[in-house]
Amino acid sequence: MSKKKVVLAYSGGLDTSVAVQWLTEQGYDVVAVCLDVGEGKDLDFIQAKALQVGAVNSYVIDAKEEFAQEYALLSLQARTYYENKYPLVSALSRPLISKKLVEVAHKENATAVAHGCTGKGNDQVRFEVAIKALDPSLEVIAPVREWSWSREEEIAYAKEKNIPIPIDLESPYSVDQNLWGRANECGILEDPWAAPPEDAFGLTVSIENAPDTSDVIEIDFVKGVPVSIDGQQYPLSELILKLNDIGGKHGVGRIDHVENRLVGIKSREVYECPGAIILLKSHKELEDLTLVKELAHFKPIISQKLSELIYNGLWFSPLRDALEAFIKETQQYVNGTVRVKLFKGHAIVEGRKSANSLYDMNLATYTSDDSFDQSAAVGFIKLWGLPTEVHSMVNKKQTVKN
Amino acid sequence: MSKKKVVLAYSGGLDTSVAVQWLTEQGYDVVAVCLDVGEGKDLDFIQAKALQVGAVNSYVIDAKEEFAQEYALLSLQARTYYENKYPLVSALSRPLISKKLVEVAHKENATAVAHGCTGKGNDQVRFEVAIKALDPSLEVIAPVREWSWSREEEIAYAKEKNIPIPIDLESPYSVDQNLWGRANECGILEDPWAAPPEDAFGLTVSIENAPDTSDVIEIDFVKGVPVSIDGQQYPLSELILKLNDIGGKHGVGRIDHVENRLVGIKSREVYECPGAIILLKSHKELEDLTLVKELAHFKPIISQKLSELIYNGLWFSPLRDALEAFIKETQQYVNGTVRVKLFKGHAIVEGRKSANSLYDMNLATYTSDDSFDQSAAVGFIKLWGLPTEVHSMVNKKQTVKN
Amino acid sequence: MSKKKVVLAYSGGLDTSVAVQWLTEQGYDVVAVCLDVGEGKDLDFIQAKALQVGAVNSYVIDAKEEFAQEYALLSLQARTYYENKYPLVSALSRPLISKKLVEVAHKENATAVAHGCTGKGNDQVRFEVAIKALDPSLEVIAPVREWSWSREEEIAYAKEKNIPIPIDLESPYSVDQNLWGRANECGILEDPWAAPPEDAFGLTVSIENAPDTSDVIEIDFVKGVPVSIDGQQYPLSELILKLNDIGGKHGVGRIDHVENRLVGIKSREVYECPGAIILLKSHKELEDLTLVKELAHFKPIISQKLSELIYNGLWFSPLRDALEAFIKETQQYVNGTVRVKLFKGHAIVEGRKSANSLYDMNLATYTSDDSFDQSAAVGFIKLWGLPTEVHSMVNKKQTVKN
Amino acid sequence: MSKKKVVLAYSGGLDTSVAVQWLTEQGYDVVAVCLDVGEGKDLDFIQAKALQVGAVNSYVIDAKEEFAQEYALLSLQARTYYENKYPLVSALSRPLISKKLVEVAHKENATAVAHGCTGKGNDQVRFEVAIKALDPSLEVIAPVREWSWSREEEIAYAKEKNIPIPIDLESPYSVDQNLWGRANECGILEDPWAAPPEDAFGLTVSIENAPDTSDVIEIDFVKGVPVSIDGQQYPLSELILKLNDIGGKHGVGRIDHVENRLVGIKSREVYECPGAIILLKSHKELEDLTLVKELAHFKPIISQKLSELIYNGLWFSPLRDALEAFIKETQQYVNGTVRVKLFKGHAIVEGRKSANSLYDMNLATYTSDDSFDQSAAVGFIKLWGLPTEVHSMVNKKQTVKN
Repeated sequence: MSKKKVVLAYSGGLDTSVAVQWLTEQGYDVVAVCLDVGEGKDLDFIQAKALQVGAVNSYVIDAKEEFAQEYALLSLQARTYYENKYPLVSALSRPLISKKLVEVAHKENATAVAHGCTGKGNDQVRFEVAIKALDPSLEVIAPVREWSWSREEEIAYAKEKNIPIPIDLESPYSVDQNLWGRANECGILEDPWAAPPEDAFGLTVSIENAPDTSDVIEIDFVKGVPVSIDGQQYPLSELILKLNDIGGKHGVGRIDHVENRLVGIKSREVYECPGAIILLKSHKELEDLTLVKELAHFKPIISQKLSELIYNGLWFSPLRDALEAFIKETQQYVNGTVRVKLFKGHAIVEGRKSANSLYDMNLATYTSDDSFDQSAAVGFIKLWGLPTEVHSMVNKKQTVKN
Repeated sequence: MSKKKVVLAYSGGLDTSVAVQWLTEQGYDVVAVCLDVGEGKDLDFIQAKALQVGAVNSYVIDAKEEFAQEYALLSLQARTYYENKYPLVSALSRPLISKKLVEVAHKENATAVAHGCTGKGNDQVRFEVAIKALDPSLEVIAPVREWSWSREEEIAYAKEKNIPIPIDLESPYSVDQNLWGRANECGILEDPWAAPPEDAFGLTVSIENAPDTSDVIEIDFVKGVPVSIDGQQYPLSELILKLNDIGGKHGVGRIDHVENRLVGIKSREVYECPGAIILLKSHKELEDLTLVKELAHFKPIISQKLSELIYNGLWFSPLRDALEAFIKETQQYVNGTVRVKLFKGHAIVEGRKSANSLYDMNLATYTSDDSFDQSAAVGFIKLWGLPTEVHSMVNKKQTVKN
Repeated sequence: MSKKKVVLAYSGGLDTSVAVQWLTEQGYDVVAVCLDVGEGKDLDFIQAKALQVGAVNSYVIDAKEEFAQEYALLSLQARTYYENKYPLVSALSRPLISKKLVEVAHKENATAVAHGCTGKGNDQVRFEVAIKALDPSLEVIAPVREWSWSREEEIAYAKEKNIPIPIDLESPYSVDQNLWGRANECGILEDPWAAPPEDAFGLTVSIENAPDTSDVIEIDFVKGVPVSIDGQQYPLSELILKLNDIGGKHGVGRIDHVENRLVGIKSREVYECPGAIILLKSHKELEDLTLVKELAHFKPIISQKLSELIYNGLWFSPLRDALEAFIKETQQYVNGTVRVKLFKGHAIVEGRKSANSLYDMNLATYTSDDSFDQSAAVGFIKLWGLPTEVHSMVNKKQTVKN
Repeated sequence: MSKKKVVLAYSGGLDTSVAVQWLTEQGYDVVAVCLDVGEGKDLDFIQAKALQVGAVNSYVIDAKEEFAQEYALLSLQARTYYENKYPLVSALSRPLISKKLVEVAHKENATAVAHGCTGKGNDQVRFEVAIKALDPSLEVIAPVREWSWSREEEIAYAKEKNIPIPIDLESPYSVDQNLWGRANECGILEDPWAAPPEDAFGLTVSIENAPDTSDVIEIDFVKGVPVSIDGQQYPLSELILKLNDIGGKHGVGRIDHVENRLVGIKSREVYECPGAIILLKSHKELEDLTLVKELAHFKPIISQKLSELIYNGLWFSPLRDALEAFIKETQQYVNGTVRVKLFKGHAIVEGRKSANSLYDMNLATYTSDDSFDQSAAVGFIKLWGLPTEVHSMVNKKQTVKN
């Protein structure tokens, strides 16, 4: 009889390296899977290390373009910010990683999937709900949550089992990164009164160290997709990475957030999203120019729900499909060019233009070219204000009588 | 028989000066009313000028603190941004000006009220709906909309009637200002691809000209009201003006917005709101610390509706009372201190603390002080993900069968 | 030089018959267009009458199935009720009629379109906005609003011009009808304290006169579309008409509504929608069984917005396309059968079943077949209640200290 | 050293009687508390029985009027229906019962509170979150969830301990009742295709058995509070009970609902709410007459959130305070009289009148008394439709060019 097989989301760090060993002791053959979603990993090193610490098989998958096209793009087009602030960095990669884990599990005939999350974060929820949605028959194991060792106990176990201890283990921070940004928590960041120190950041320079001259770039969008920078076309994942570089150089996209986790606590997180912020700001400006008013005013309701849904680990819910159908329908009008100035931590949209622009200079102007019928305003105001006027007449009279 | 009397919102500029004369020719005694809502007017000059151009009486009213307490404060506590961008500068002052006009009309036994708006902006709607809500029996006159003269015709009329022509008449811009900020439109700003030139701004320096050293200030809030800066208490109107100064010095609060007017067109506006932006950002950080999750997640729905309502001229609707009741109920928890760094156009909240803080370090920490029950997560995730799991089981099976 | 041509929405009644003559006198050739959207008109009679009263051409168009498929169906699937009450009868047909008018205008090379609405209802808005959306170059004429005659003046004009006066002219009511229901206003209905008299109704019997035995029917839905009654398939328009018959016989679907018109006034309307109400109730029950919770809880937000949009005449807004994309995405799960009992004015869903049912008897049951993991609830409740608990700990302590 | 003391929510049924014994065996002194929230209990019998089965103290509390004033009234004024259907019967009583349990716990110096819920319903969540909100230091025990016996094991234990077995134990149903209605689940109701049998109902007759003559009643509201029936004033709890009687006699208020529980499953419930339904329908009609449009259109958003909050056990969240502040602010206008016909399962509002009525017959009428300015509609429609028109011009042109 063959041994049970588990597919483990493997990062190369201490927790998941120990997990390979620990799962093996629980009687599993461990298949390691490492995804590159744009964090710039040394995939060869990680693939080899998984085998070294005991995995029976080790996959590395470049998922950058899939992540950009299927996850980051929806987030951009809907402009999902959790709590009006955080552009959903880690929350976006979890469903894709889960999908790849399930695919490998099917390929390897594994009966279980494992992840390295603890029991107090959001990511455990995202992994487990996503995996159950994709294949409810798979068992999900969370070794770190289950063994509940202290840091010292974990290191002792690793030493005993000859698992290499990473040299950056002393970092006080816990970092996750992908194309759409970098998240950091723990250490001094757990004090919300303390300013985040410079060593908490990895993608951006400080405003103090940003250059004294700006860069001005033009980004072209076709149907809500950013396709080129200064006329040069890029695949979406490369375009985002390029904006991470140039935005990071100017200190764009630092976010400091005390947020409400799904699991019921507040936590303080620091994010860096240079490319995401440049694109999110540019996309809004282009929509401000091209979307009709009632659509522009309702879309934020969709975005807020989508943000919560993604944050809360429900990417594979049919509600996401419906919200996505709404968003995609709106993007046909979002064509044009945005000019962005990057300077001292800012991404300032200085100009926007579009063949679909609903800004009509002849209607908007106060010059002699004016084609707006000002007399129409009289009738408009009369009916617009009529409910308020009737309310006032009735209830003022009431007040007098009472 | 006495002549009809009209109360005119008087600014001292050309349009309303001509309106005094024009209304007089229509058979009205004109009572001029000028409010100071924080724009730094020379009230004595304006009061005298109204009489000089033909008004029978001339009022000047310092409404700064009333504007701060009754209008700007609600906007701050709800954090109302129209279209997620514009903090409602002019839209906030219109109902207060309307209220004062109606009060003077009652005192002067006037039968009509007049304003200087054209027929294509939002302000005509705000004035007229507010006045009708406060006293439906008052006639409302909009001379500028009615006479529909070209600029040249208006100047010719003014010269003929010996109305002084202001020296800044050649400015291409149309500006409105109060405590909460400054709005600018027209001229080159009507081209949304053109960057706003420096002469379009009046309250802020450019980022290029901002100082190379930051200022760091601490703002204390009591029940959602900012009460002091660096420990020094101020009346709210003075506190906002002080933040306008210091924020303006650092280039904080420039906004460039292509927005949807109520009257059906898009227009491009440039705003400067240094004090407002500093306070709005600080207030959010304090709420992020002190409001419970489900409240924090629903309040933006209230804010969006309130923003639209105010923008659309419905301040005196009973819906505003109800939205305000919601907001005020929430502010009892918003006590504490926010530390803000002003630098190169940024107002960065670096720290926040509160006796009502719901951030619990013992729950949030990843250190050994952890008091969060990680095992609870297992049950939580099981039930949280159950609907998605059942959906998947049922509909995957369906797919297979079909 | 040829005369100008106008396409008139022609009903065969007095107003539009007079309009043919009046428009002719304004110098137009009048092309009459009459649509059948399910109100059971004598189309031959109307086609002939249009020519008799002076039209140069007369079209009659059977649009019942198009109305059912493209307009009523979306309303059913979204379950749009204006103000949670009125299933949008007339509001649904106006965009379709506008579309046909524009199509005929293009075919006939007409430069104008005319409708018979007065100046105080919603329908004028719906026609004019729809026509402008479909072809902004067309002139829109509203003869009844323009001539502003009293009833007596209109009749005098008709007699003078030999226009036949309909025999039901003395009816106090103003009725509009289509597949989706019948709307009635005016006369005694203008008193909201008065009960609607029996002669106000045309599609339904009173509950007092409804049969003492019920009918029980089964309706099958495929992807949110009702396709058969008791196993017999029907085209959608016929299915609705059949339900109007059987529902009307049992007194189902009377609605008495004091509603807020778009033009700023409240009006009292009486509706009869037997088929619509049977389908709307059945569809909800099937969705309650088949939609996952978070989708079921968000869809009403979409429906409310869609209801307002349609009521307010914005059918051809791109917002409708986006809302429709959301709704259509959700309907793939809405398959199954609903059993409805029709009795004494009620349409009671007694049973519902579906291959996509998410109701899982083994999870829901309290019998020994229970497969729900009750121990998971402990962890769930702990984290679900954690924010409230922390709020209480912090703020109770605060209260004690203050 | 004194024993630990627990306060148990005691109903007199088998589960909580066994719980007294079981908790005693766990080392607790058990204090029983039974509330009357309108279900018509024999309180003397229950008080005595608690002592008989081993409680050290036994409280009975008449909480009917407090329940009506503080819980049912808010639900009425907000018109909270969970999933647009269920008027929140049990969900409303749980926070009040929790409050009383905590008050008794403080009085008795108890350290724990216990309830008789199982691990798969909503009520466990409502009790535990409410108790934690009111006093986070109290331990909460759920004996039925903890012992996880089968029905047979429980009965065997009861017999062994001489706990009386209720005679209605063989009922297949699980019932909860209060002033606001009666909830029933289990047995044949677990099949959503089966019609609920007559023995599932306890407050209402079937439509078949309802009288052939209607009753017509008039209900007066003052600030949103129903105060009298046919001119006779009643305390709110008595008014609701009286409407339960008369509504029940006519078969009003049966609801059959497949609903989404908070704990992740769908369940099928049958409710009877005769008084609640009569009041909810009457209240809507009065608001339709008296609330200004924009308020009437936004209030449902508040109601939906409040419904979810209450259903989900978050009554004591500060979000409820804020939502309640909104609702209460709106009720000042809800004064007047509603005439309701009760007949064959219907509560039909036939007439409504109010001194605050915003229905203005002179504006609404089509008779010669018309005071509505129809010419204003022309300008209104022009600006109302302008965004759609511009969108059409721009994007139709686009389509042609592409």
